[in-house]
Amino acid sequence: MSAIKFCLAQLNFKIGDFEGNTAKIADTIFNAKQKGADLVIFSEMSVCGYMPDDLLDYPWFVEKCEQSLEAVAQSCQGIAAIVGGVMRNPNKGRSLQNVVCFMQNGRIQQITAKTLLPTYDVFNESRYFEPASATELINFKGVQIGVAICEDIWDIYNDFEYPKSPGTILKDLGADIIINPSASPFHLGKQSLRNRVFSGQASRFDLPVIYANQVGIHTELIFDGASRAINSNGEVALQLPEFKEAVHYIDFENNKFVSSNTVPVEPDEIETLHAALIFGIQDYFNKMGFKKAVLGSSGGIDSAVVQALLTEALGAENVLAVLMPSQFSSDGSVNDAKQLSINLENTFEILPISSIFNQFEDTLKPVFNGREFNLAEENIQARSRGVLLMAISNKLGNILINTSNKSEMSVGYSTLYGDMCGSLSVLGDVYKGQVYALARYINRHKEIIPQEIIEKAPSAELRPGQKDSDSLPDYGVLDEILRLYIEGRKSKDEITMEGYESQVVERIVNMVNANEYKRYQAPPIIRVSSKAFGKGRIMPLVAKYQ
Amino acid sequence: MSAIKFCLAQLNFKIGDFEGNTAKIADTIFNAKQKGADLVIFSEMSVCGYMPDDLLDYPWFVEKCEQSLEAVAQSCQGIAAIVGGVMRNPNKGRSLQNVVCFMQNGRIQQITAKTLLPTYDVFNESRYFEPASATELINFKGVQIGVAICEDIWDIYNDFEYPKSPGTILKDLGADIIINPSASPFHLGKQSLRNRVFSGQASRFDLPVIYANQVGIHTELIFDGASRAINSNGEVALQLPEFKEAVHYIDFENNKFVSSNTVPVEPDEIETLHAALIFGIQDYFNKMGFKKAVLGSSGGIDSAVVQALLTEALGAENVLAVLMPSQFSSDGSVNDAKQLSINLENTFEILPISSIFNQFEDTLKPVFNGREFNLAEENIQARSRGVLLMAISNKLGNILINTSNKSEMSVGYSTLYGDMCGSLSVLGDVYKGQVYALARYINRHKEIIPQEIIEKAPSAELRPGQKDSDSLPDYGVLDEILRLYIEGRKSKDEITMEGYESQVVERIVNMVNANEYKRYQAPPIIRVSSKAFGKGRIMPLVAKYQ
Repeated sequence: MSAIKFCLAQLNFKIGDFEGNTAKIADTIFNAKQKGADLVIFSEMSVCGYMPDDLLDYPWFVEKCEQSLEAVAQSCQGIAAIVGGVMRNPNKGRSLQNVVCFMQNGRIQQITAKTLLPTYDVFNESRYFEPASATELINFKGVQIGVAICEDIWDIYNDFEYPKSPGTILKDLGADIIINPSASPFHLGKQSLRNRVFSGQASRFDLPVIYANQVGIHTELIFDGASRAINSNGEVALQLPEFKEAVHYIDFENNKFVSSNTVPVEPDEIETLHAALIFGIQDYFNKMGFKKAVLGSSGGIDSAVVQALLTEALGAENVLAVLMPSQFSSDGSVNDAKQLSINLENTFEILPISSIFNQFEDTLKPVFNGREFNLAEENIQARSRGVLLMAISNKLGNILINTSNKSEMSVGYSTLYGDMCGSLSVLGDVYKGQVYALARYINRHKEIIPQEIIEKAPSAELRPGQKDSDSLPDYGVLDEILRLYIEGRKSKDEITMEGYESQVVERIVNMVNANEYKRYQAPPIIRVSSKAFGKGRIMPLVAKYQ
Repeated sequence: MSAIKFCLAQLNFKIGDFEGNTAKIADTIFNAKQKGADLVIFSEMSVCGYMPDDLLDYPWFVEKCEQSLEAVAQSCQGIAAIVGGVMRNPNKGRSLQNVVCFMQNGRIQQITAKTLLPTYDVFNESRYFEPASATELINFKGVQIGVAICEDIWDIYNDFEYPKSPGTILKDLGADIIINPSASPFHLGKQSLRNRVFSGQASRFDLPVIYANQVGIHTELIFDGASRAINSNGEVALQLPEFKEAVHYIDFENNKFVSSNTVPVEPDEIETLHAALIFGIQDYFNKMGFKKAVLGSSGGIDSAVVQALLTEALGAENVLAVLMPSQFSSDGSVNDAKQLSINLENTFEILPISSIFNQFEDTLKPVFNGREFNLAEENIQARSRGVLLMAISNKLGNILINTSNKSEMSVGYSTLYGDMCGSLSVLGDVYKGQVYALARYINRHKEIIPQEIIEKAPSAELRPGQKDSDSLPDYGVLDEILRLYIEGRKSKDEITMEGYESQVVERIVNMVNANEYKRYQAPPIIRVSSKAFGKGRIMPLVAKYQ
């Protein structure tokens, strides 16, 4: 009977790097041929990387994409490949299609376009693509292969049900297997969601499924790989790792995968979060060509966790910590911050900001005119630190990394152009409670983050004796209200009905709404939840909210 | 024969202000009834305002929208109305539809959903809505009315041709007239584009058309109104004004409008730009509940033009100019800036930044360690000014307005967290050449902007003797290359073929690409071109460009 040796290529592509991406694909095809594979499967939009966004509006970009697909096809001699890309739409409608090419004998044999175009949260595909108008199978070595691109296999796993089910169409056409080249971004819980979706769909269609995801970070999005092959009973026959490139082989005989490895258990949430952030930092620095980072080290929990993550991701010698105490900083904070840098073996600098702060106050005297200390003075401190950090970044070339967490970003407990500065936000999608859990995880083998940092009450230290809890509820309560409002899309009334004080809910939700303007100017945030701030959450600024 | 007195209501709605919007609509219906109108036509999504973006993901928001439509319908006694809103989709697919309700006898009689969902540039409708699945006409007083919502009448006026033509479908069903409730944003040249589209489509379908647009600013977007009624020969029978609310009446007899006013000539481009920016500033301040503005006044052309625009929009007493000379500022600049504030009758403050700059240098000594003056020091100056302006904004409540122009924003000739600070960018979509034209226009009756400001060579004055032309080509050339790349989507080669030096093109395009990261954190920009930075131009940050 029919037998195919599949090669599942889970690779890291760079958006727009046609040369690099094409070389990587051709290389993989060459190696797979050496190993006797019949068909190599790459991820969605592999020649151009996912997602080039409005680069797709530039005709030269699309031409290069088409040329790259042609070039890759030439390397398919004695072996076949399924390669994703973008092509011009030959018919009426949007000018492009998101396609997968079946390549054999040195040329593109068949083109399958994507049917379901995700256009929600971080996805924007209807902005560029016309959906497929027809579907056909690929006959390869006697096996009828159906191609469903990414979202095409998620037809019933969304907030809404698509009018079309590409899987059902493929099944009805007589497919023996569904191949699903994807660009599926990570968020916490995505792995168990995928377990449900792929095993569920394999069973529903009674067909084996190969899911081939890309890996790598593209601005806010982490693509985590975790590609797999699933038999028609829903059992996982092959599971690729998360957060790294991997090329695996699996034999397909009599419409069944010959299992090649066992399925890893779902890892701990905080372990996964930690791995995702480390990978996110590393791949961002790699792809941008950056090497060294700088951050403000306040002695608080957020900067401590970011500093530890940067150190693990980039190496101790590539992280510069800057301590910028003011007259309101406690000695404890400075000592804790020092101890952290010592523990992590990072270079650190201490640049007190009192003289700068006093100079600003002096200069502003004619305007401030004796008005009392308030938010303005708090922000001057945070912004003076921003100026120092950016100056160091400009002078030494270290990239400034932001340390705000999601709880703060939500309620605007952060200073625009101050502690909101940075090229990349590491914790902007991590709630305060998760930040503590990360700290404990980082300390799992030995005390890296001084225990004092974990134990003391959070404070911005921008005025005497300030504590976060002066103006915010405990982080346990705050995080839960935020989750219900941001991820859960609940109304104030619904949140109150879950058992929270209505005045507190009212205040927190209003703070979230009132601070859209700050988040509009925030750095890109590594996305680790199903609803992160950034491109996946578009809110009007000029509006009247609930 | 059949006769209808139409009322065309071009109103300013606030996103999410259901109470205010509903009251305004009901009021207009009441007045129209007094005046003997038969049918009042409102713009697209009038009860909720266009565009609520991800507020649409919140079920409470959609419920309020539906309730508001029901409430408005109750006021339609002895008069009919066509009112736009959002409703839940009763079928499979996206959970919402963009609808227009025909209301009569106190209730919603017919619902028409939008067929073509614009999803390009600043439009995002496929993110939320399922397109119409069927079309039917409204029989009103013996006239067969076809409703085509906004984009529905633009089927062939795009970069691509939609597979469906709602106008053709309405014509084939036997429509006597097409009513087109819209939310159509302004850009320079849009008015003449609309002339082509509406007259073209009226002639193509041989049907009269009523185009009812909203007016008002929603964050980046200006909706300019300019609603109209067009006879089937393409002649404009009624033209409403730009940039203001207006309610006009027109009689429709024997399938023809009885002309009620003549068509204004296309105004001068700079006059229109000026009017758009003034309106944009005013409506932003109105809707946000802001009154006073603050800006940095450098003695350069950009801040001078912004200061003059703010003064015209908000009143001289509501604009505070802050002059922040450094050791590199020329006396001329300070005097020019003073004279400008005197001419405009604005309060101004002079806050020299030399001591702050020196204090930063002092504090940074251990890190900078004798390294020579470079970009880092230039940016410290720009950022010190940002801190001062934000401090004044925080202390006095004046809103900081950004003064960067589009040419600078394009090539990154601006300091992130420095002169890129602000709540709103007035000139971020205005090229340098247009800034000069605006200055001349502002001075058309008398010298408001001192002639020296218009005549001197542009300089950031961040180091001795610095001129923009040291590192940039003349603005005439720069603007043209930028237009070809940004608005024209041309490749480097194509731009060079238009007659520009290839090295210059290479450098400029690379500067645009390399500075995406700055624009990612830029303030919202009032959009006046067909391709503005902001939500209408989404570019990846982690990518390899051409």
